Parts: sequence; C-alpha cells; structure tokens
Amino acid sequence: MDLLIKNGTIVTASEMFKADIAVQDGKIVEIGSNLNIPAAKVVDAEGKLVLPGAIDAHTHLEMPFGGTTSADGYGSGTRAAACGGTTTVFDFAMQDFDENMVDTVKRRDALCAPVAAVDYAFHVGVKDVHGDLLASMKEAVDFGVPSFKVFMVYDFGVSDGVFYKVLEQSKEIGALIAVHAENNEMVNMLVEKYISEGKTDAWHHYLSRPEFVEEEADKRAIAWAESLDAPLYIAHLANKGGVEAVSKAKEQGYHIYAETCPQYLEFTCDVYKREDGRNFVCSPPMKGKDSQDALWAAIKRGDIDTIATDHCPFLQSEKDWGINDFRKIPNGCAGIENMYPYMLAKANAGVLPFTKVVELCSANPARLFGCKQKGSLSVGKDADIVIYDPEKDFTVTCGNMHSDYDHTVWEGYSMHGYPVQTYSRGRLVYDNGEFVGEPGWGKFVKRSLR
Amino acid sequence: MDLLIKNGTIVTASEMFKADIAVQDGKIVEIGSNLNIPAAKVVDAEGKLVLPGAIDAHTHLEMPFGGTTSADGYGSGTRAAACGGTTTVFDFAMQDFDENMVDTVKRRDALCAPVAAVDYAFHVGVKDVHGDLLASMKEAVDFGVPSFKVFMVYDFGVSDGVFYKVLEQSKEIGALIAVHAENNEMVNMLVEKYISEGKTDAWHHYLSRPEFVEEEADKRAIAWAESLDAPLYIAHLANKGGVEAVSKAKEQGYHIYAETCPQYLEFTCDVYKREDGRNFVCSPPMKGKDSQDALWAAIKRGDIDTIATDHCPFLQSEKDWGINDFRKIPNGCAGIENMYPYMLAKANAGVLPFTKVVELCSANPARLFGCKQKGSLSVGKDADIVIYDPEKDFTVTCGNMHSDYDHTVWEGYSMHGYPVQTYSRGRLVYDNGEFVGEPGWGKFVKRSLR
Amino acid sequence: MDLLIKNGTIVTASEMFKADIAVQDGKIVEIGSNLNIPAAKVVDAEGKLVLPGAIDAHTHLEMPFGGTTSADGYGSGTRAAACGGTTTVFDFAMQDFDENMVDTVKRRDALCAPVAAVDYAFHVGVKDVHGDLLASMKEAVDFGVPSFKVFMVYDFGVSDGVFYKVLEQSKEIGALIAVHAENNEMVNMLVEKYISEGKTDAWHHYLSRPEFVEEEADKRAIAWAESLDAPLYIAHLANKGGVEAVSKAKEQGYHIYAETCPQYLEFTCDVYKREDGRNFVCSPPMKGKDSQDALWAAIKRGDIDTIATDHCPFLQSEKDWGINDFRKIPNGCAGIENMYPYMLAKANAGVLPFTKVVELCSANPARLFGCKQKGSLSVGKDADIVIYDPEKDFTVTCGNMHSDYDHTVWEGYSMHGYPVQTYSRGRLVYDNGEFVGEPGWGKFVKRSLR
Amino acid sequence: MDLLIKNGTIVTASEMFKADIAVQDGKIVEIGSNLNIPAAKVVDAEGKLVLPGAIDAHTHLEMPFGGTTSADGYGSGTRAAACGGTTTVFDFAMQDFDENMVDTVKRRDALCAPVAAVDYAFHVGVKDVHGDLLASMKEAVDFGVPSFKVFMVYDFGVSDGVFYKVLEQSKEIGALIAVHAENNEMVNMLVEKYISEGKTDAWHHYLSRPEFVEEEADKRAIAWAESLDAPLYIAHLANKGGVEAVSKAKEQGYHIYAETCPQYLEFTCDVYKREDGRNFVCSPPMKGKDSQDALWAAIKRGDIDTIATDHCPFLQSEKDWGINDFRKIPNGCAGIENMYPYMLAKANAGVLPFTKVVELCSANPARLFGCKQKGSLSVGKDADIVIYDPEKDFTVTCGNMHSDYDHTVWEGYSMHGYPVQTYSRGRLVYDNGEFVGEPGWGKFVKRSLR
Repeated sequence: MDLLIKNGTIVTASEMFKADIAVQDGKIVEIGSNLNIPAAKVVDAEGKLVLPGAIDAHTHLEMPFGGTTSADGYGSGTRAAACGGTTTVFDFAMQDFDENMVDTVKRRDALCAPVAAVDYAFHVGVKDVHGDLLASMKEAVDFGVPSFKVFMVYDFGVSDGVFYKVLEQSKEIGALIAVHAENNEMVNMLVEKYISEGKTDAWHHYLSRPEFVEEEADKRAIAWAESLDAPLYIAHLANKGGVEAVSKAKEQGYHIYAETCPQYLEFTCDVYKREDGRNFVCSPPMKGKDSQDALWAAIKRGDIDTIATDHCPFLQSEKDWGINDFRKIPNGCAGIENMYPYMLAKANAGVLPFTKVVELCSANPARLFGCKQKGSLSVGKDADIVIYDPEKDFTVTCGNMHSDYDHTVWEGYSMHGYPVQTYSRGRLVYDNGEFVGEPGWGKFVKRSLR
Repeated sequence: MDLLIKNGTIVTASEMFKADIAVQDGKIVEIGSNLNIPAAKVVDAEGKLVLPGAIDAHTHLEMPFGGTTSADGYGSGTRAAACGGTTTVFDFAMQDFDENMVDTVKRRDALCAPVAAVDYAFHVGVKDVHGDLLASMKEAVDFGVPSFKVFMVYDFGVSDGVFYKVLEQSKEIGALIAVHAENNEMVNMLVEKYISEGKTDAWHHYLSRPEFVEEEADKRAIAWAESLDAPLYIAHLANKGGVEAVSKAKEQGYHIYAETCPQYLEFTCDVYKREDGRNFVCSPPMKGKDSQDALWAAIKRGDIDTIATDHCPFLQSEKDWGINDFRKIPNGCAGIENMYPYMLAKANAGVLPFTKVVELCSANPARLFGCKQKGSLSVGKDADIVIYDPEKDFTVTCGNMHSDYDHTVWEGYSMHGYPVQTYSRGRLVYDNGEFVGEPGWGKFVKRSLR
Repeated sequence: MDLLIKNGTIVTASEMFKADIAVQDGKIVEIGSNLNIPAAKVVDAEGKLVLPGAIDAHTHLEMPFGGTTSADGYGSGTRAAACGGTTTVFDFAMQDFDENMVDTVKRRDALCAPVAAVDYAFHVGVKDVHGDLLASMKEAVDFGVPSFKVFMVYDFGVSDGVFYKVLEQSKEIGALIAVHAENNEMVNMLVEKYISEGKTDAWHHYLSRPEFVEEEADKRAIAWAESLDAPLYIAHLANKGGVEAVSKAKEQGYHIYAETCPQYLEFTCDVYKREDGRNFVCSPPMKGKDSQDALWAAIKRGDIDTIATDHCPFLQSEKDWGINDFRKIPNGCAGIENMYPYMLAKANAGVLPFTKVVELCSANPARLFGCKQKGSLSVGKDADIVIYDPEKDFTVTCGNMHSDYDHTVWEGYSMHGYPVQTYSRGRLVYDNGEFVGEPGWGKFVKRSLR
Repeated sequence: MDLLIKNGTIVTASEMFKADIAVQDGKIVEIGSNLNIPAAKVVDAEGKLVLPGAIDAHTHLEMPFGGTTSADGYGSGTRAAACGGTTTVFDFAMQDFDENMVDTVKRRDALCAPVAAVDYAFHVGVKDVHGDLLASMKEAVDFGVPSFKVFMVYDFGVSDGVFYKVLEQSKEIGALIAVHAENNEMVNMLVEKYISEGKTDAWHHYLSRPEFVEEEADKRAIAWAESLDAPLYIAHLANKGGVEAVSKAKEQGYHIYAETCPQYLEFTCDVYKREDGRNFVCSPPMKGKDSQDALWAAIKRGDIDTIATDHCPFLQSEKDWGINDFRKIPNGCAGIENMYPYMLAKANAGVLPFTKVVELCSANPARLFGCKQKGSLSVGKDADIVIYDPEKDFTVTCGNMHSDYDHTVWEGYSMHGYPVQTYSRGRLVYDNGEFVGEPGWGKFVKRSLR
C-alpha cells in the first residue's frame, strides 16, 4: 500500500465508524478494523476524523470582472482549496460571445491544468446560444462538462427566453443548469435610484438587491424549470422567500436543488453598515437575520443540497474603488479555504451532524455534478481525504491563509476543530498549516451525467 | 318624481327584497314598500329583478392595435353596453410617449364625450414615466382618473423597473394600478419558436401564451406589489396558478384584486382548435379546464373581485389576416353587451347568487375604482338601473347585438333570463331589444380615490 | 308613519349613505332623501349613524352551570342587550337527557317569553341523540330553530361519533351546527396535572386550555364537517392555529364559519396573571398576542364571519369560589351590552369599516341563522334600529350597565362613539343611557333555513 | 477470516460500489478491492448485490388478538424473516395492565429467546401508566428498549391525555413513541352504523376506517407531539392527508417520522371488494389510489422514513369467522418475508434507487430505534448481510414461504430479482430457498437512544 491511515473515525454521508483506510495508486482500496498491511506511509489518526475531501462547486478563479480580475488565479485558488480540505474545485468557464462551449472549456483548461494543486472541473457560463451554440452544450457534456450556468443579472446575463431554451436543451441532454437568480431590471432601477439620491455607500449595494429582488428571480427560475420538469440548481441561495420556494418545489416532486454559501450562514446585511462594508460586497449580498435563519432551517430539514463558496476575492485596492460609489466595488469575497473548516466547526459545536457536512460539501456536489470518483470515502473512490482534528483551535487571518488576496471577510473568525492534513488522490498536499502539494498535480475531472 | 319602478325585487350586493324605487333628477330618492307618489313614469316590475347597472371596468374602444382599430368606437361600444345592462364603461386611454397623462385623458375624452350613450371613465394606459411624466399620475388623479394600467407585454409594455416605479407612485398618491400580466420574453421566444417550426394556426397562439407564462407574470406583479405593500389589480386573470397566487396574497393581507372575464369562464383553449379559432384570439388566451374551474371556485370563495369584458372586437376581415399566421390576428373579442346577461343567467341557473353578480359586476368595480355615485341601488346614487326578466329566453346572434362588429364569439349562446330595460341616470336607454338612448348622453365620471 | 328617522347616515353591510328612514307597524317601509311624510314620531339623526340592531348569536342566560346559574336571566339579559344596541339575542336551550328537542325549546321559551325585552331565538344545545331524539332535530327546525350546538368539552359534551351523527343529520335537514371546540381529554389531564402540582390560580386555568388544546379540536371538528361536506359554525374561535384551519377550509370551498368574541379581541391570557384573574375565567380562555393578532387579521380578510359575546356572567361571590382552585370558578364573563359598542368604537377609530361591523354583528348572523326579518336596514325588514353618535364618549362601569351582574371584565373600558338609541321593531327600548322598553315586548324569532 | 464475500456490489444508504467484504466473529472487519485474505468460507457474489439485512420494525408475533393468536410464533416468524432478507425483527411486547414495562419485555423475551432465528428487539406496547408505571419507561430504556407504542384504537388504546403523558415522558428520557393512529370513536360509530344497516362484508371494514378517520388521528397525534416538540413515529401510515400532515410537520422542523408498509404500496381498498376480501383485512385498511400515490411520492421526496410490515397473519379458518360479519375477522396480514424482496424488486425495476431501499428498510430503522450495530455494511457492524440476485425470478406462493400461516395476500406476486442468501452475524441462515439457520441463534438487541 502507498498509504495507510489508522485508528481514525471515518465519516460518510450517512454514518461514522472507527476503521483504518488503505490507499494505493491514488484510490481507496481497503477499509477495515486494525488493518495490518505493509504501507509506504502510515498515519495515525487516533482521535481524528477522516473525511472525504470537500468539493467546492462554485468558484471564480482568474475571472475578469468589474474592470479587473479576481485575485486568485487557478494556482493560488486551488492551493488555498487544498489547505482548507477542498480537493475538487469547480470554476466557471465563461463563454465568449459566438464561442463553442467546448472551446470555452479548453480555453480555460489550458490556463488551469499547468498550475492546479487539486483536481478541478468547469461549469460553462452560458452567454450565447444563437445558431449552433445551443447544440454545443451536448458537445460539452460529451467532453465531461455536464453542467452549465446562466446569469439572470449582469450585462452578460440571459433573457428569460434564452434561459428557457437552455433549460429545455439541458433536459434533452441530461445536463444540469445552475442559475444566478436576481432580477436584473429591478437591480438596475434601484441602483440608479439610490445613486441619483446620492446614496452611494455599501449599505445601498444591499438595498439595491434586497430580499424580494432575489426571491422573485428564484421563483421565476423555478417556474421555468417546473414548466419543463427540468432539473435546476439555484446557486448561492440567500433569501427566505427563495428557500420557501425551493422547499415547495421539492415537496411537489420537482428536481430543484439549492446551494448556499458560508457567508450567508455567518453574516447578515448588517456587515454593509460597517466601515469596511465594501469588503463584503458580493452578489447576491448577505441578507437579513430571517433569511439566515431560514437557510439554517433548510439545511437541517434537507432542503439545501450543497454548500459552496462563490469564492471571488479582489484586492483591497480594488475594493476601495467603490468607497464612494458602491457600483464600482468589484463583487465577490474570499472563501475557498474556509468552507469545510467553517462547516465542520459548526458540526463540532453540535449545530449539525458531521455526516450532514459530508453530504453537503462532498457527497451531494459529487452526485449532482457527476463526479463519480469523488464525494465519498469508499472502496474504489479517489483517495481525496481530509484528516480533521476536533481539538485544534484555529483563527483565520489573512496571513495564515494560502491565497493571493490581501484581506478576507473571515479575518479573525475562530474555530474549535480544524483540518490537519489533506490528501489529493493519496498525495499529501496540506500538512498542518503548510501547503505541501505542487502546481500541476490537479487533474481535470471528466464528469458523467447525474 | 320622474320615475317610479314598482313591485320589483331589488338586488344589492348583500340582499334581495321587494320594494319600489323612485327616481328624480337622475338620482334614486326613495325606496319603499308600496310607494304611492305621483311620478311622470311608472314602471311595473312585478316578477322582475331590479339591479344596479353593471360597470365594465375593462374595454378597448376605438383602440389602434395590430395595424387597425378595434371595431367598436365610443358610440357603438357604449350603445352596446347600454343594451347589455352596463351603465358605466371604462376605456383605456393609452398614453403616447412623452405625453402628460392628463393630456392623454383629455385627448380620448374629446372623442368619447360627443357620442357616449352611457357614462364612462378612463384608466390611463401608462407607457412612459420619464422626467415629469411620473408626476403627471397625480395630476390625472386630481382630474378624476385615479387608476392606471401597465402592460407587461407588447412593444409598449413596461419593464419591471418602470412597473415598480409606477406602483411606488400609486401608493404615494392612493391610486390603483391594473396590470396585464404575461411574460413578454417568454411569449416572444415561444412565438418565434413555433413560427420557425411552421406552426402558425390559432392553437399556437395559445401555446405561445400558455398557463405558466401568465402565472409567472401574475406572481412577479404580485411580488412587486407586496414588496411595496401597494394595492394591485390583476386584469383578466385566466390561469389557475395565478388564481392561487391571488388567494395566497389576500390570505396574507395584501391588497391584491383580481378581475376575470366571461370568456375565460365559458370557453377553454379548445376553441383554438376550431376552424374559426382565430376569432377567439385574445391575450391572455383562454386556458385549460383546470384554470376555468379554478376561476369559478375563486369567484365562489370571494377571491375574484370583479368581472369585466376586455371588449376589443375586430372585423372578420381583420381576424382573417392571421388565417395562416397567428401573429397577424388582431387580439381581442366582443363582450361588452354580454357580461351582465351572462353572469345573471348563471345566477338564474343557480350557479351563484344574484347578490354576488351585483357585487362582482357593479359594487366592487365602483368601490375599487372610486365611482362614488355608482354601483348600488341606494338612496342618493345615480339611477343606473337594470330591469331583468328571469323568465325571458334569449339567444345571442350578431344581428341582435348593438355593436359595430360583424361576428361574435358569443354567437348562438342561449340564456334563460335577460335584461329588459336599462336606465342611465333615470333615462331609459334600452327597452326590450332596442337601443333608445342618444349619443352624447353619457358623461365622464369624475372619480375619487378608493 | 309611526316613526321617521331623518338626516342620519345609514350603514349597511356594503355601504353608507345619507337617507331618511320611515317605519310603520314595526317594519321599515321607506328609505329616501328628505322624506316628507307625516309621522307620529320624528327623530333627527343629523351627524349620527343609523345601523341595524346587532344580533348576538351566542349567550347563556339563566344557565345552570358550575353549581349556580348565570347571573343574567332572560329579563335582565335582553334588557342589557337593548341598551347595547343588540336587538336579537340567541340563547342556548340545553337539551336534557332523553328530551325531545322541541320540548327543550318550549321549556326555555316559557321562561323567556314573559320577560324578554328584545326579540330572541334559541340554538338547541344537543346532549343526547339516542333513539328518536336525533330525528327531533328536524322537528326543531320546523318549529323555527334550525341551529344546534355540540360541545366537545364538559360532562355533557358529545363524543366524536355523536358529533358526526349530528353533523350528518344537519346536512340532511339543512340545519347549521355550532361547536364549542376544545379537547376534553387534554383539558382534564392538564387540570389534574396542575392541581396535583398545587398550581391552582387562574393562570393555570389558561394553561389547562392553551392554544393547542383548542386548535386540535377546531381541526378535528373541521375534519368531520369536511368529510361530510356539511356546514359548521365554530363558536368563540380564539386561537391562531384554529384561525388558519378555518381559512384553509374556506379556501378549499368548505362551508366552515367562524365566530369570535370581543373578549378575545381585546384581552390576552395575561389577564389571568392579574389579581382578579378569576373574573376573566371563561372557556375557551383568552389566548396569547399571536392569537389575538390572527383574529384581527382574519376579520380583515373576511375569514371571521360573526362576532358574538358568549355572555355568561356570574356574581363576584361565585367567581370567588375558585380563588384557591381554578376548577371552582364558574366559567363565563359579561359582554352582552358591550359587543356592538366595542366593535363600532373600533370602526370609529379606523380599525375596520362600519360596514364590516354591520356585516359581522348583524347581517351575517341573520343570514347564517335564518333570521329573514333581521340583519339589515332595508325596506320590509323589522325596524330594529340603532342610532349611534360617533362623538359621544363613554366609559363602562358596572353601574352604567343594565344587567344583574355585580362586576364586569369591561370595567373602565373607554370608547369614543356610543349608541344613543335602540329601537326594537320600531319601539324605542333604549334612550341615551336609560332602558325604556318593557319585559315581554321581545318575541320568539321563528327562523328559516339558511 | 470466517467469511469473505467477493466481487459483489455493495449497497449502502448513500452509494453503490464494487468491493469485497470480510467477516470475522460475526462482524464486518474489512471492505476492499480484491481482498486476498484467507477465509474459512469464500462466496463469489459476482453479478450480485450485497446489502445490509433488513430491519422490520413492526411485527406482531405470537400475539393474542381477536380471540386467537397470530399465526406466526417467534420461531416461525423470525425464520420467515431470515428467508426474506430481514435480519432484525421488532416485535411488540404488549404491556399487561398494572405491569412494569421491563417485566413486559422480560415476559416476552422468555418466549422469543429460545426460538429466534435472527436477532430481535421489542417495542413496549403501552396500555397503563398509572402510578409508577410511567416511570418504568425509563427502566425499559435502560434495559435496552428505548421505544414504545401507543394505540389510539382498540379497547387497550390510550386516551389523548395518556398519550400526551407518554410523549412528555419520552421527551424527558429520549425515547421514541410510535403510534397507531385511527380515531376510535369514529371507527366504533361507523362499525355500529354499518352493522345496524346489515352491511357486514369486508368492504365495510374499509368504510368503517376510511381515509378521514386515519387522517384525523394522524393530525391529532402530530398536534400533541408538536405541542411538546417531542419526536413521534407514525406507524403504518396509509392515507394521503396523513402524508401531507407529516410533510408539513417535517417542513416546519418537527421530528415526525413515518413508516408505511408494502401492502399499502401495492394494494388499494379495492381488494375488499374481492371474494377473499376478508383475507386482506388489517387496520388501518388499504386505502384508495390517491393515498397510494401519495405514499410513493412521499417515499421519493424523503417524507417516509421507514418501511415495515405490520406482519400479523391469521389462519384461513380464523379469517373465515368474519365471512358474514367483518367485525369478527382477526385484523392482520402476512408480510415479514416479503418486504425486502418487494422493495428491492421495485428498485430493480427502476422505481426507486437501491440505496433508497437500504435507507428505508435498514439504515433508518437502525438509526431511529438505536440499533448501533445494525443498518449498514460498514466496518465494525454486525455482519447481517443479504446477497441479492437481480436476475432471479420469483413468484410468491404460500408453499415457498417459511411461515406457519396457510395463505398470504402476496400469493402469486411475481418479482424480477430476489435474495439468494442471508447471513446473520456472519452465519448463513438462508440459502437459495432454504432456511438453514437454527432456533435460538437470534439474540436480543440491546438498543441505545437515538
């Protein structure tokens, strides 16, 4: 064996049990009680939890936005992921106008492959479906990219008609559509209104995209999906009304899935009243306490399917562009290294079971997005393993993170319990505070249909 | 007294009782048992019902649309109204771009005043709110026009942002906004899709605007109203999901009102499969049986507030433009003379109480749209009175109607029970099959806020 | 004419208008503008409202309960009613075991007829339906008593099986069943529990019958009614969950009606923490603020059909029996003279429209319980009329009430606006603070089916 | 190793993967790819599924009922279980009046231990909680029996007050209460009614316990649980309204669990119209198609937690007692050997995933009822293993079953896919049609709290 992790408590999406785990050629080959087999490396995980690596289904690396590019490139982003126990990173490959979607993926893969520290995958961000481009969705699926995203906002967002066509096509080919749901018209009108009234601070970023603006778009997106009985994945769900709509749709048997992010679980819109409120500017923005409570309740009853980060940090100097005009703040915050530690610390504090965290952060994204080799510590799967010390205390600072950003919304956040090792296909990539992997180790994950 | 109607059964929105009714100077001045007062004219209504004239809150007279103008002008339209027991007609005064809304009203009033056979009012159809135009809503209210309509479809429809601003303004000034709710993007996409597939018949008019396309828009419109706690009036509600959304909003205490039309209560989308399907083309189109059932159930439990006609007939030759291309069919059907007879015949058949018909067709539109002198047979109100013979049989033909159109969707529809006389402010305008009024008798109804 | 009330503003269930009203032989014979007819008595109601007398569908007069008899007999109870603007009083004629229900009515009528100050009616309180007794419901209907009540609590309460049979019978014969809904088993268990723990104060009366105990019974009662599609009238609804159940049932088209009482609208369970908490002991008890808010919201959206009092006062000395043991407090409070003034003062303060108060307190009870001659100021109806001065200030004290009780939960309650005159079939019975009627004037109201 | 199962596809509650499984001393000790370890017995499961044994949480063995005793004793019942892939059987130990609950368990254990073919556990059927008996629930928990059942029907059923006390106690001590929910009063009344009308066939067994009778009791039971925020397990849920109530409760975050049975998933009330309808008599009875559809939909969306059998067969001669009087038919049907094969065949046919069947039939009952050593094929668990051949065809006849009954409702039911071997703690107890275990092998499962 290449690796033998002994004496730990294995956590799956449905149970926890004490067992040893043996790895060869990057795969889990045995799980057993007191395995006595020779191994090149033996790790004692006594008192530790042994978990499948997290899958972050929502990041924006090296992404051009708001006149700059997000602060983490594919190298630093996947490095930080590794150090936070995330062993598979999904990035959005944003289609150019008039671009075949496989070309989109190849274009971004060329940037990512040489530097990726952990395995990675792409969703295609759909902008243009005229002519043959709609059909190129099927080509992308065949290429191993069976998921796509549409934006209902931003200048590259799609109209309802295009959204519907993409959903229709996805149903035909078995793909899954993710959606960024906010009402574009309403955002634009409210932004213009507040700016014209001289209300330019970060708080008005929130007021331009308040609960009802997201809720309406959630419901509209769900309406289109229901009309086609097509599956739909709502990215970064952050408002109570949207949560209720998702619950109702599930109740009625529709295949509506929802993702939320740690920032919506931890922060409320009150952060936009802080002096550094601009640093928290992302879209959708954090919402009120009612929405936060609704998200946690939905997690507990099973109506949130996944947790992801929407990682998209910008430099402080770039965030400062909007100090007097919230429109100029590049949208996005850091999170790629914080998701799994945050959720696991919540489990460690008794808020939810560890098994649920594994389900939300690993098993479900693997299942929904067709990562057949990921998402579970079971025999035959990739040995993407995290060893978690439930007694280790850790406080986030920008300095002890492993990204290229220069500030973080998680600054000062303390956790009891923290990952101590991460393995990517059996290779140690993170060891007690240090990144020990290498650029280019990470491989493109060719995915299947759900 | 000018007029004494004796021995009839008076119907109000809440009760029926036998009494005589005396009219002077166009007003109801006495209601009593066996009134023995001298009167210029005495009418024996023994065995008849005596009802307030209907108020049709939704017609399009002399309206330019689809390359022509609706077949009924203000003269013929109000004449037909009189002959169907409707004594107040609301028309949509469609704002021109860059036009002050009071000017809009005056421009249409100039056409209507000389020829109106019964009293009339206008809603302003809002197209443009840039600059000072938004503020002209208040001027229109002061002018006696406290209701406005926005369209979510058509090239003159408004965006969500404009819709929101209009709602916000209406809340400020106490006005009521009506909405034509269908999703414009979705209609356009579906139309294009079907046409590109060579599916050009009237059935594809329906398939381009099916249930979910209206439902989504209803819910979106309600979402904006709820976010502002502004009242909203949903015109021509025709789908089950929208009905449920209205019920839920009312349940939660929001001021959401709904109108439906006789065509949605009587016909289903199956009419579009008929050879003359194009003649039934209107928007929203008739829907499936489930929607029809939901509308009737909502009427019975009080979740539909008003019945109106959306009267907008076109000539057969114009309807025929679209015989091979549903896009070319001018949208709209006849109805102004049929609403009250249709609803009262339903009451006469036991489907709903006569009091409910009075509430839906007269009391509620008067209340919601601020017609203080209308909507009830009570002392002090305008003597807009209909005498209804519950034993009279009547079958609609184009020939026995009093409009200027040349065909009707109601052709051949038979009723047991029919109006025999209509009085407008005490003046007989319809007498047993004959129009006996005069052009120009009708007056502009200066309205108050709700 | 016997009576002419001039210059007042008439209030009906659907509108308000200025008119004169003429009365002859106890009936309303004319309503008109500036009626100039000779009359024996002319009353100037300038600045006043002219309303139909209230109908209190829920009182317990001369009722044996808890080892004594309720403090108001038929004489004092109906006298107090008159002085509060209530012109028709429903009492519960409680069936004895093995008693034909017509006999029950006659037995109580013999007590009431000689002393009644205003018109009155009975519901039969059903205890026993064995053998022919079930069939005697039809006899009672024919006698003019088409409404019955079952109790789910108390030792004379009925089992679910009997309740179902009574509902089934009522559907057959067109009668209406009212229900006192609380869970008997749960009350008994909680009472025993608290007493065994030495918790004997009035607060534990409430805790023995908290929200969920009433809610469950409401839902169970509704379940039986729905299973038969039988109409059902829920008496003294006082909890939020029950309100929601009623709303849902109405939404689904079931004929479920709900009554609430002023005490539930004004007080919360906090009164049971007061030193005189025992004086507020009634069943169901007042509930929490959430329930109170839900009742008001339901009134506003139309899901509460009637207001009644559950008037059942006891003497202070009797209430004191339970000073150390809440089980010994006779259940019931005063209210018969307070309902209409309370509700009208709320309307006067803008909380709800006057028309709504007329609907709740007069039109609806008349309609639901088949009082064809009551419930409206329209031509041909009984001249049960209240003149209300919206400017009169009034503070309730036991001394200015007209009952035989010696204390009241309404002590010290102040209102702006108060009734100044009450007419029962055209006869003045209350005049500005004084009862001016006579015992025996009131007549049994022979009622029809709904 | 004692046992090595090679080349099979392991099924857990969350995934399926190909792996070998090694057993020693009755426990699973290793799971791996191509395990090459010496073993006393090696089984080739190529092409087969390897599943955790089912846990049947609801059976009545050797149960006195309706004047006789259920046809399967502990010996034959557990033998049949083994042959159907069920390796843990829960029986109801019915408390005698005035009996300490631990004594109840011991009394029944003495009967079961000598003859049990597979492991077994008890729920205590609670009849009497007076005096110290309520406290004996805690003693039962400590004895390893942390679950109890109350019946809302039958002469030994409990009142609402007792039910509430039991729930309250369960919350205190962490136990789980199961409930048989039907309305006793309503059943009795309807039975009496139909019998008095001479309606005595099996169809009137159904009509005496129709949908609404079960639904009401479900909702009442849930109401009590919600009022205490106590967990509740609804046994044999069989009606649509009850399903909706469970879904709503879960949605609101309450800990309401639901079990249904194969007979409700396969049959409808139409079976009671068959000539042998009496053979299908059980309580609750099978319901209509709407209820069946609702159950399947609830399974798919996760609102049904477990499948169990309510196994309680009687001999044909006993069933015949009621040929002319449905009251005399002993209630109950066979099923213990059919549950897992039935559900797995549904999975094999694509109706639901195999993982879902494992969750419903094994993982969830283990979790809810505290069987820490059961419910999963993972390292350290008891080696309760079923090998399933997805290609084996099987048709149920009374002759190829392994119970002591003489007829079965499943007669003639055909399945594609069937279990071929069952292991109980590593010992082969069923082999391709033959029971190969031994009486007394089965052990009492000492359970923990959830």
